[in-house]
Amino acid sequence: MEIVCSRNDLLKSISIVMKAVPIRTTMKIMECVLIDASSDSIHFMTNDMELGIETTAEGNIIQKGIIAIDAKIFSDIVRKLPDNDVVIRNDESSNNIIITCEKANFRIPSMNEEDFIRIPAIEYSRKLSLSQFTLKEMIRQTIFSIATNENNPVMTGELFEIKNSVLRIVSLDGHRISIRNHHLDEYTENTKVIIPGKTLNEISKLLSGEAEDHIDLYLTDQHIIFQMENTTVVSRLITGEYFKIDNMLSSDYETKIIINKKEFTECIDRATLLIRENDKKPLVLKITDNEMFLFIDSPFGSMSESISVDKEGKDLLIGFNPRFLLDVLRSITDETITMYLINSKAPCFIRNENDDFVYLILPININPGTYNSL
Amino acid sequence: MEIVCSRNDLLKSISIVMKAVPIRTTMKIMECVLIDASSDSIHFMTNDMELGIETTAEGNIIQKGIIAIDAKIFSDIVRKLPDNDVVIRNDESSNNIIITCEKANFRIPSMNEEDFIRIPAIEYSRKLSLSQFTLKEMIRQTIFSIATNENNPVMTGELFEIKNSVLRIVSLDGHRISIRNHHLDEYTENTKVIIPGKTLNEISKLLSGEAEDHIDLYLTDQHIIFQMENTTVVSRLITGEYFKIDNMLSSDYETKIIINKKEFTECIDRATLLIRENDKKPLVLKITDNEMFLFIDSPFGSMSESISVDKEGKDLLIGFNPRFLLDVLRSITDETITMYLINSKAPCFIRNENDDFVYLILPININPGTYNSL
Repeated sequence: MEIVCSRNDLLKSISIVMKAVPIRTTMKIMECVLIDASSDSIHFMTNDMELGIETTAEGNIIQKGIIAIDAKIFSDIVRKLPDNDVVIRNDESSNNIIITCEKANFRIPSMNEEDFIRIPAIEYSRKLSLSQFTLKEMIRQTIFSIATNENNPVMTGELFEIKNSVLRIVSLDGHRISIRNHHLDEYTENTKVIIPGKTLNEISKLLSGEAEDHIDLYLTDQHIIFQMENTTVVSRLITGEYFKIDNMLSSDYETKIIINKKEFTECIDRATLLIRENDKKPLVLKITDNEMFLFIDSPFGSMSESISVDKEGKDLLIGFNPRFLLDVLRSITDETITMYLINSKAPCFIRNENDDFVYLILPININPGTYNSL
Repeated sequence: MEIVCSRNDLLKSISIVMKAVPIRTTMKIMECVLIDASSDSIHFMTNDMELGIETTAEGNIIQKGIIAIDAKIFSDIVRKLPDNDVVIRNDESSNNIIITCEKANFRIPSMNEEDFIRIPAIEYSRKLSLSQFTLKEMIRQTIFSIATNENNPVMTGELFEIKNSVLRIVSLDGHRISIRNHHLDEYTENTKVIIPGKTLNEISKLLSGEAEDHIDLYLTDQHIIFQMENTTVVSRLITGEYFKIDNMLSSDYETKIIINKKEFTECIDRATLLIRENDKKPLVLKITDNEMFLFIDSPFGSMSESISVDKEGKDLLIGFNPRFLLDVLRSITDETITMYLINSKAPCFIRNENDDFVYLILPININPGTYNSL
């Protein structure tokens, strides 16, 4: 094989496929990128058995062929080469791959390309079209509440459910639920799949975030395919039944407050100074007419602050994990947020009028007597 | 005590003194900042027993007094406060320090300020004046070759030697020596001290890097004092006799080459891709007329490249630790560098005409037969 690509095109392609290269494995071939120039175009492929990525690279084929090379080393080399044409060829006599750019010349041992496990051929069915901006935002606004604990595999992924031309993405970790709804422009078959969190994190990095860039998703029984210009990502799905979340959602409330998001975020941000990772200290909210009083107590000290709110309904004293509130506040793009509460033991809902997003957070039990002096 | 400072002034002062706060100690008081408002100005002080820092903060004293508070928590709080006036006062009844800014209110346990070990009073003698730019650069250009291994304490510091109105800074680690010379504008008494590397790293962060900002150093027998506007840093010195390096320096050479620094740096940077930390693989230089050929071989592959040089004297084949070359190249600000070499076993010198800097690097032994094919 012998190909010529510009250094910048190479860097673009290798950066894309690096997302499916595991850091340490017992199978060296999984740490490789396959460069397939056996037909009329150049394809880069990686596959860690959960996630497979294929992208088409710009360049000229001088001699057709296929090679496999350690992806990390190849990526490091490309990154450090001058911005000029790069020649990649295999030297069959020495079993080396030779990479040349200007006066620099690398010889890297080649791997047996026949050992490379290619991405399985999957039927493209149940297509869903989105803008890359929308998908990237919907992932960002929900991914924080997947479970990291793998006792229940379905909780480590997100539910993608299409029903009556609405895409609903759901994640939950036992303490909270995050939901994003999106009305689809074109008819899409009803279906639901559970996509691994790792896949969504990697896909998110590949998405441009531009509203005019599109992506097609194909939701098959075992796999999901993400199809972008030049690049295809295939991921296994998580098998199992997702939670029936509709029973957990309620639109009843006793107290409704509207809060300036920036003020609320900065206040919680200050409160979290006093707690350390894994600390279970609640942030206590005392909601009265037009004012919310926030209080946190820890071995490092205590902090209190008040912010003005628009309130409807009853006064309330309730405690939350402040990080859960921060996660939600950071994912919302509106200037104000609306919280719906029932009592100090019932879940709180943060949602907007159209239900584009619905966040449920369970409170932390507090002893109201402790906070009488507030 | 009660003082009022702007959040930004507080942040400036606490950031300065944080440089002498140890991360984890058995003595909680060493992790504190002392805020001394017992006279007409506000002083912040920290002391980790090696390094002590004192800085004067802008602000108003409402009630005189002294407090000690956990420096990390205080710094975190100040960082997150809104940009407005901050009131700091101690509540003697609860033994808390109360920090208030707008509607935010922190209560942090106070430490016993009498336990704080103040910076010793030291006689200000043997003064040396420099621009902050010069000192910052001289430290940057030498600090990389101090020894991290503490078998010989003097190697973990830098020699500051004043002789005939020249300041010479020296560091060495057994494989290389870095020297920076600087002609002093005013007469300064001959002296020499060994300053801990850690002190120089922290001082370097406090220096503005501006030529018009000045700093005074006082070199006493046991301590060095760095005096900047508003801020005083006191450090212990390392006791012991420094190496007699003049015997190690030589101006003889058999081969002299002038190389473009950027080209040489980029080439070595590419070569180091193939070696891992602690790898002893040499970068082999084959110097011939007007061309230098670079070669490196490792379990990950090999790399070769040639760059054009101006050469005087004999051809030479020599091996170096590529990281030692990179450290020197990155510290030099000139466009070209000049290397002076004798043979493949003798140290190489990189210096400029005025001897502003002199770098000595020992070569790595190589077997010339291995490189016949180059």
